[in-house]
Amino acid sequence: MTTAAPTTTEQELDRVLAAAAAAFTELADTTAEARARALRRVADALDTAAAELVPLANRETNLPVQPRLFAELGRTTFQLRLLAETIMEGGYLEVTLDSPDSDWPAGGRQDVRRMLRPIGPVVNFAATNFPFAFSVAGGDTAAALAAGCPVVVKANPGHPELSERTASIVSAALTGAGLPAGSFALVHGEEIGRAALVDPRVKAGTFTGSPAGGRALFDLACSRPEPVPFYAEMGSVNPAFVTPAAAESRARDIAEGYLESFTLGMGQFCTKPGLLFVPDGGGFEAPLVEALASRPAGRLLNDRIAAGYARTRSALAGHPAVTVLHEGADSVAGPAPTLLATSAADLLANPSDLTTECFGPTSMLVRYTSSDELLACARAFTGELTATVHGEGDDDVAARLVADLSGRVGRVLWNGWPTGVAVTYAMHHGGPYPAATSALHTSVGTTSLRRFLRPVAYQNMPQRLLPEVLRDGNPLGVPRRVDGVLIAPR
Amino acid sequence: MTTAAPTTTEQELDRVLAAAAAAFTELADTTAEARARALRRVADALDTAAAELVPLANRETNLPVQPRLFAELGRTTFQLRLLAETIMEGGYLEVTLDSPDSDWPAGGRQDVRRMLRPIGPVVNFAATNFPFAFSVAGGDTAAALAAGCPVVVKANPGHPELSERTASIVSAALTGAGLPAGSFALVHGEEIGRAALVDPRVKAGTFTGSPAGGRALFDLACSRPEPVPFYAEMGSVNPAFVTPAAAESRARDIAEGYLESFTLGMGQFCTKPGLLFVPDGGGFEAPLVEALASRPAGRLLNDRIAAGYARTRSALAGHPAVTVLHEGADSVAGPAPTLLATSAADLLANPSDLTTECFGPTSMLVRYTSSDELLACARAFTGELTATVHGEGDDDVAARLVADLSGRVGRVLWNGWPTGVAVTYAMHHGGPYPAATSALHTSVGTTSLRRFLRPVAYQNMPQRLLPEVLRDGNPLGVPRRVDGVLIAPR
Repeated sequence: MTTAAPTTTEQELDRVLAAAAAAFTELADTTAEARARALRRVADALDTAAAELVPLANRETNLPVQPRLFAELGRTTFQLRLLAETIMEGGYLEVTLDSPDSDWPAGGRQDVRRMLRPIGPVVNFAATNFPFAFSVAGGDTAAALAAGCPVVVKANPGHPELSERTASIVSAALTGAGLPAGSFALVHGEEIGRAALVDPRVKAGTFTGSPAGGRALFDLACSRPEPVPFYAEMGSVNPAFVTPAAAESRARDIAEGYLESFTLGMGQFCTKPGLLFVPDGGGFEAPLVEALASRPAGRLLNDRIAAGYARTRSALAGHPAVTVLHEGADSVAGPAPTLLATSAADLLANPSDLTTECFGPTSMLVRYTSSDELLACARAFTGELTATVHGEGDDDVAARLVADLSGRVGRVLWNGWPTGVAVTYAMHHGGPYPAATSALHTSVGTTSLRRFLRPVAYQNMPQRLLPEVLRDGNPLGVPRRVDGVLIAPR
Repeated sequence: MTTAAPTTTEQELDRVLAAAAAAFTELADTTAEARARALRRVADALDTAAAELVPLANRETNLPVQPRLFAELGRTTFQLRLLAETIMEGGYLEVTLDSPDSDWPAGGRQDVRRMLRPIGPVVNFAATNFPFAFSVAGGDTAAALAAGCPVVVKANPGHPELSERTASIVSAALTGAGLPAGSFALVHGEEIGRAALVDPRVKAGTFTGSPAGGRALFDLACSRPEPVPFYAEMGSVNPAFVTPAAAESRARDIAEGYLESFTLGMGQFCTKPGLLFVPDGGGFEAPLVEALASRPAGRLLNDRIAAGYARTRSALAGHPAVTVLHEGADSVAGPAPTLLATSAADLLANPSDLTTECFGPTSMLVRYTSSDELLACARAFTGELTATVHGEGDDDVAARLVADLSGRVGRVLWNGWPTGVAVTYAMHHGGPYPAATSALHTSVGTTSLRRFLRPVAYQNMPQRLLPEVLRDGNPLGVPRRVDGVLIAPR
């Protein structure tokens, strides 16, 4: 069953943006408590609607209801609640107070009080592959609202009905909690998304998707008369490196973990390990090929994703430096997992061809013949969301890999797998370009708030005109840096 | 006396960038202690060379030796020392630790440890108007080095000899303190500066100067195959608003403060108040015109600045909506301060003409006829470094101005003047575009470090492979957020 894609007209977009701009004035001055209450109300409403939303998501994305979609909705509502808790704690405001000091070097110091304030309306381009967690009510929306920024979501065309339904639940919950009506809206259409991004009322953009799509929007955002930050998370090949020592002691375990990780969710994660570097003759191939024989085919998210996957898989499999270890048979249901192989020498000779992300259940073994070659391969990567090292206790090769990769990626994992990005305080989901357009920020975890905040300093301001959080006596009990000393409330 | 401008060849630039890239690997892993020692050594060396550097700066910039240039050098070396102290304290690393927790919602939580790490080599386009504090050894250089990033300074053509001399002192001090040789370099030439900015080895850029220059470089940085952040501080008109209540009680004091502020340093500060909003007939004009009669002419920084100033002043003075209250007589020494006037209605009708920054000793009174008109004028500004409000204790107009302006500028001042940007913990020198290309960051104060840092997370990493600052037991005694709780060391 196909439904006509909903469309948003330019007039509707104009009304949405006018409402967002009007809401911002009010939203910027709401208390953290009011916004936290609203975020929790959204979370509760989405949880309550799970039995309706999950089947809808399943129908539009082919993702399994259990465990995937229920778990993803749970992650989404947890994220809203964790951000609510984060803004209540207040450390994200980076409150910093200087007291007046005429002896301060270089001319004395005034009473200056600094905090972070919301940047303005944000347009969020929703992802295909997480219809809850990176879509209408996903991380970018949650973080922008938590920060105090109105959000206009540009719906992903892969799940329009779910987007509509989610949006109406979010809108009702937010207005029910007392936030201004323009705080949230959903729009549809590629051209409308671009029009929103270049509108002067929009002050930042977010995106999760392909490098081509992300870069095109980034270029738009930068070329505006008033450029705005555009936080695009554009995927990654997520190389995993197995040292000789680890291969010797745990080849079979590593192979099993790798297979689970690259086939999870039919390989449709931006953290899927796309390359596994293994010693030549290290015993990885036989168990992997054997296990793959019984791996079922499965549906990809939609026809567009399936076509893109087939194209990239063919290009990789047909590359003269690549051999096909196991070709997953395509059925009516979709493709089964495919395993390719190449050599480290070939990868070093063709890095741009062979480190291409293949979004779907294909990955590639890269056989290396020496530790130096392995280390050289690590240096072929310049911007990845993650890199994984499998090593042993006193493994010098592993140590050198970790040291080098930490300069090239957002997250370095030890003896694990990059899929599964927990929503926590310390999580970083981002990395140098082309993993993301800004290496400075994360799209997952509590510090994702920082993308939507800018500093404002108040100099010699009377108490009554200061935001409450900056007033004497720390009335909101937030962490503050006072004359250089960080003070954490008990 | 003119000296031939030094030039850097493309081959020299290539060597400089190769050395910077090589140095980065080492510099990124230096201890905060090593970098702090190096910054202090630079500060000491510059202080020691004051008697040589200050006259050189005076000869190349026409700025007075006393108090200005000695004070500016003092600010510069203080800045280096304050950043040394800041990195020793360690809060800037934003260390965040998650302990493993299988009960954590949405799938459990691993051991993840996050910190900020240096982004890579930075090219710093030095300013004209602060030959010490925003030039070779200025704030951008100090912050990037403190963060662990090698710096390539593109010399400002206004003070080439001082730049060379400063650079050799900085280089000697850094290598004397044990930092790698490629940690710092100076290059000359506009084309060479652009070549540096688009080189893949450079990972960020900084700039202090004109909107046209900053935007052109920002566009270059964004259009690279790998875009990099470009932090341009591009000046501001810094409107100051006098409420009816303040005008009634303190017109003469305000006029005096305004005159001092807009003529300080011959008006060559990016925080110079370029517009003063006063009630029509509020008694500001007579005392200002009287005081201006005895104000001396003075030399501007150089011929290029003087020509730009003359051009902008003429355009403003010749605008049909502007009257000249006092035209500063130009002498062989240079221009004397000029005071213009317009009406709020005219400003609202011609905002782009009449809110143009005039870099030099010219400012404009804007006469308003009602509080509503004054508030409408505040809304004409979208991106300013500062805005100033002169109000009284229970002044409702002032309260509304402060609330509105805090959404439009980087720093809001009360009953003061924006010139004089102290180097402190809470200072914010930046603002929405066009004051700066990134509203998220400051170029003055200790938080200026954040521009050169990106998050890296380590998952399940063995202790021995973690950066020391992330290890169990907090061996470096830095502030850390552990399982969501901020812990400040005593």
